[in-house]
Amino acid sequence: MARSSYRLPKIPEMTVRRLSVYSRCLRELEEDGVKTISSQELAERFNLNSAQVRKDLAYFGEFGVRGIGYYVAGLRAELQKILGLDREWPVALVGFGNLGSALFNYRGFGRQGFRIAAIFDDDPAKVGRDVDGVPVFAVVDMAREVRARSIQIAILAVPAEGAQPVTDALVAAGIKAVLNFAPSRLRVPRDVRLKDVDLSIELETLSFYLAKSGR
Amino acid sequence: MARSSYRLPKIPEMTVRRLSVYSRCLRELEEDGVKTISSQELAERFNLNSAQVRKDLAYFGEFGVRGIGYYVAGLRAELQKILGLDREWPVALVGFGNLGSALFNYRGFGRQGFRIAAIFDDDPAKVGRDVDGVPVFAVVDMAREVRARSIQIAILAVPAEGAQPVTDALVAAGIKAVLNFAPSRLRVPRDVRLKDVDLSIELETLSFYLAKSGR
Repeated sequence: MARSSYRLPKIPEMTVRRLSVYSRCLRELEEDGVKTISSQELAERFNLNSAQVRKDLAYFGEFGVRGIGYYVAGLRAELQKILGLDREWPVALVGFGNLGSALFNYRGFGRQGFRIAAIFDDDPAKVGRDVDGVPVFAVVDMAREVRARSIQIAILAVPAEGAQPVTDALVAAGIKAVLNFAPSRLRVPRDVRLKDVDLSIELETLSFYLAKSGR
Repeated sequence: MARSSYRLPKIPEMTVRRLSVYSRCLRELEEDGVKTISSQELAERFNLNSAQVRKDLAYFGEFGVRGIGYYVAGLRAELQKILGLDREWPVALVGFGNLGSALFNYRGFGRQGFRIAAIFDDDPAKVGRDVDGVPVFAVVDMAREVRARSIQIAILAVPAEGAQPVTDALVAAGIKAVLNFAPSRLRVPRDVRLKDVDLSIELETLSFYLAKSGR
């Protein structure tokens, strides 16, 4: 149903984000028993932009069928594959304070195939423990444990001060992608992908609409 | 320097998100002492798309000056105003477990003018306490306290099960915007803005690039 030619152009990160959103919409449609849907209907139901949907998908192939639209289950499977979600990713969680604990218990990760396989923290009260079957190690053991578990993705939930040395240790351990919750600008080598999560951006989309409505 | 005509078209949420990003880039430039910058230079330095930058800004006015580009400080001030960040927003934090505590301590919110003015939680061990000067109330007192503090924005950090009744209480109390961290689909009236934060989308942008590079 699609060419898997998604090595060609440089894909904007916003497109990738939207693929994740589309995949969630399709899951919902699947749960509702919908078999096929046009880009127009998809856009209307989920408040998307249908031209944008078509453009985003066009990076990866020709998914629509004339007169039918998209096959919901088929398109979702393709998107999951494109997003790398057709497999399980072991993940390292670094920092097990309030935020780390909250992220550990965040059910969304597991649902998408991200499995926290090791926790790292330097608090002696935590090291050596086991949280729901996941071991807590000291940062000094990172290289060994990351390699032993073939971990490529790390979630960084440490205070700003410690973020750069811990990132350096992650990179040295062979980590290839870092999701950073620490409010600091980190340096990583070119072949390591860094994604900063800035939660205040989410609030700003709200204040924008409140300010606009003159409240 | 700009028409403040941002009531005209429907602004896509992705555009609003990008305005937040541009504002952060401009802050960085300001800190570095940069006075003016072209959309091209801005795009190159921060890995943005210059046509997109121009298109996003065009929703709100004509900010560029021919032969000069953008005035960094002036454009940032305009963006802050557009985003509603030229004022302080009192915010209600609902749910004070691990995630709530982490969000309370998240420094990014305060930096952008979002001040947590009240915490709501039904744990009797928490109600009546005061966390760094912020009072913790029971959910039953929400309407009174939200009104007394003129709060319009709430951050929802409760478990999925309790999310809808708490949202209903927030709406009844007069809240106009909800940032939802609970992994549940909430119903709100049309005049209330709901923003779901799905942290696994952030991880998916990483798995996409790892999968693409064939790792």
